[in-house]
Amino acid sequence: MEHLLQVLLTLVILFAMARVGSLIFSRFGFPGLIGEILMGIVIANIVIGDWSFAEDFLKLISDTSDPHYSESTLGIVEIIAELGVIFLLFMVGLETKVSDLLRSGKAALFCAILGVVVPFVLGFAYIMAVDGNLNHALFLAAAMVATSVGITAKIIKEMKLIDTKEARIIIAAAVIDDVLGMIVLAIVKGMVDSGEISIANVASITIQAVVFVLVVIALCIWVIPRIYDFFQARKARKEPKYCTPGINKLALAIIVCLAMAALAEYIGLAGIIGAFLGGMMLADYSHQWRLEEKIDSICTFMLSFFFLNVGLKVNIFALTDVSVVIMIVIVLVLAILSKLVGCSIGAKMGDRSIDGASMKLIGFGMIPRGEVGIIIASIGLAANAMTPELYTVVVFMSVITTLIAPPIISKMFKSKYGEVCTIAPEDRA
Amino acid sequence: MEHLLQVLLTLVILFAMARVGSLIFSRFGFPGLIGEILMGIVIANIVIGDWSFAEDFLKLISDTSDPHYSESTLGIVEIIAELGVIFLLFMVGLETKVSDLLRSGKAALFCAILGVVVPFVLGFAYIMAVDGNLNHALFLAAAMVATSVGITAKIIKEMKLIDTKEARIIIAAAVIDDVLGMIVLAIVKGMVDSGEISIANVASITIQAVVFVLVVIALCIWVIPRIYDFFQARKARKEPKYCTPGINKLALAIIVCLAMAALAEYIGLAGIIGAFLGGMMLADYSHQWRLEEKIDSICTFMLSFFFLNVGLKVNIFALTDVSVVIMIVIVLVLAILSKLVGCSIGAKMGDRSIDGASMKLIGFGMIPRGEVGIIIASIGLAANAMTPELYTVVVFMSVITTLIAPPIISKMFKSKYGEVCTIAPEDRA
Repeated sequence: MEHLLQVLLTLVILFAMARVGSLIFSRFGFPGLIGEILMGIVIANIVIGDWSFAEDFLKLISDTSDPHYSESTLGIVEIIAELGVIFLLFMVGLETKVSDLLRSGKAALFCAILGVVVPFVLGFAYIMAVDGNLNHALFLAAAMVATSVGITAKIIKEMKLIDTKEARIIIAAAVIDDVLGMIVLAIVKGMVDSGEISIANVASITIQAVVFVLVVIALCIWVIPRIYDFFQARKARKEPKYCTPGINKLALAIIVCLAMAALAEYIGLAGIIGAFLGGMMLADYSHQWRLEEKIDSICTFMLSFFFLNVGLKVNIFALTDVSVVIMIVIVLVLAILSKLVGCSIGAKMGDRSIDGASMKLIGFGMIPRGEVGIIIASIGLAANAMTPELYTVVVFMSVITTLIAPPIISKMFKSKYGEVCTIAPEDRA
Repeated sequence: MEHLLQVLLTLVILFAMARVGSLIFSRFGFPGLIGEILMGIVIANIVIGDWSFAEDFLKLISDTSDPHYSESTLGIVEIIAELGVIFLLFMVGLETKVSDLLRSGKAALFCAILGVVVPFVLGFAYIMAVDGNLNHALFLAAAMVATSVGITAKIIKEMKLIDTKEARIIIAAAVIDDVLGMIVLAIVKGMVDSGEISIANVASITIQAVVFVLVVIALCIWVIPRIYDFFQARKARKEPKYCTPGINKLALAIIVCLAMAALAEYIGLAGIIGAFLGGMMLADYSHQWRLEEKIDSICTFMLSFFFLNVGLKVNIFALTDVSVVIMIVIVLVLAILSKLVGCSIGAKMGDRSIDGASMKLIGFGMIPRGEVGIIIASIGLAANAMTPELYTVVVFMSVITTLIAPPIISKMFKSKYGEVCTIAPEDRA
């Protein structure tokens, strides 16, 4: 029972601090997760005179380096955090309909491909030039690739702009980008795990990841709709039973999410890839079954621990090292420019009718890296394929791109299309 | 990473099995949790020839006796299960408005008091007579006390009968009963923990538990509405900001829930008591903030592990011992008769105008013990104040009372008032 008390106390303290950070930042128009990450950084780095808050506090809850989640309370927190990310990517998958993906047109496709290739090449080349470690270069490049479809989509959804041309391109491109990012992550992780970087090895991992994605897409197109239709037809044939409970759709979704995550881990991909694809499998029924709002409630509880934990691992004193600061600045500039240039040119290549203002809007819309880059960096750190300094660089890059893009995007959209709000009435200020 | 795979696999296997059990039972009109418990019993007791499923399976996931949740994956499952129960009791609290409680009238009050005293006295006397162990008698008696407000309320709510006289009495009595049950649990747990059964000791624990409840009720009446009004007034004074995020109400509720549970554990009461009272503190705003449906999503994920775990601890081979079977039968008969007689007479004492049919309806409505009795028995088992046999007796008593009452209640209500359904459309058969 003492253990339960310790767990409850740790959870409520961490959760409350994360939410305070989230509240402060969201009041100023930034995504709340930025506040949660920064709160983690603050907790980990407060030093007053001789007294270090981090030392006392982290002694209670940290011990993050232990890969086996031994008796520490933080083992529980880490698992809840990991489940939170898995549910988050599942939710992003729920917003990703395969049919939209396939229908999204050349503008989005080219925008996504150039938006992946340009940052990856630039990031890889830069780290190879200054560091020379292949693993570091691969993981940093992978972390620069994925636009946070969550953050961009959240802004666009909150403004009810989903029907504008630019928004459609951004969302579709961010989604393709996410899928490509997942494949890049799978390849990079597989290469680092196996330790070999032979062409045969890269090819086999690429094939594995691509086949996994293609199988899921095939399931989404040909198998799942038939299963759904079969049950609908059976339901229609039967005498309409009044108020008999059927399958609880949220429970079904949780099973799909966890099973796909476990399957992905089992075949050597990251669990979040499986969760994302699992979400995609149910995307067509997500609205009808009200899955997003239900999974969102679960995420509200679990996800804050992930972002706080991200911040806890950041050593702010690394910033006293000028070379780290320079690296952050360079990576940040590369991250912004590569998306801005790659995505706007890609979109223009796919659709000649797009004008300069729209190109700029699309380019800025693709900048925020948000959680995906950080998740990739966390995986790299856990696999010893990233140094703590590079991890810090990625976190700052993600935080800053996520901080600067939303105000710009929402201002550009607002001046073009006006404003609509979808924050739940009960949660407005 | 292997650990994450193991956790994911364990979670998805257990969750899927629990939900299959739940689905089967709810299709036949029983509460789903019965199916989850029985699925746990099946898993724990399958033996085919030489091969014991339970042994292999429980080796992977069990190890429940370890109080420190060491490296085992089951440590994670147990914590998720405990958090699930905490959120469940929080949700029950959300349905319990103090104003309704105070306004519920003499019929409900007498119904609740007699419905607590009669089962407690009978259960206590019976175990003292056959066993003689004071701890055993106290815990079994406490486990016989609490009507499952969750189950009864769920049936009544699903049938939209909340406005009938009998339903109002049952709900109010079940709620008062829950509060009394929590106090009884606090007293029993405190007595067993301290090991002393002096009158001074009982008095001090009683006072502590009662003061805790009264303080929360006082907060609910005088303090919380003013805090709420203060923020509403401030909001009204300010320029209406469009679409600025305020406090996330679900996050606020989670903080209240975990903090109150931790506080209760800290002062020596059970965490679920704190969670229940925490829910009561927000009951007036629960509907407006859509808290129930949000917490319900979290429970959908976490709670199945609790009921499955309940079943996993049941040794069905205890039923080969005739004395255990006899004990189950006697306890069951006492549990049913004591509520039927105590509650219907209590209601009649409080309100002379209640006729025989209504008395019967109220009496049957108070029979199901559901989760509360089992939770109390789990606490007793963990504190070594219950034998595994008595635990099995309580589980069977709870399961059987919960199995037999709902069909009777819903038939009685249906024949009197007709039928209305509130299962979410997406979850109907």
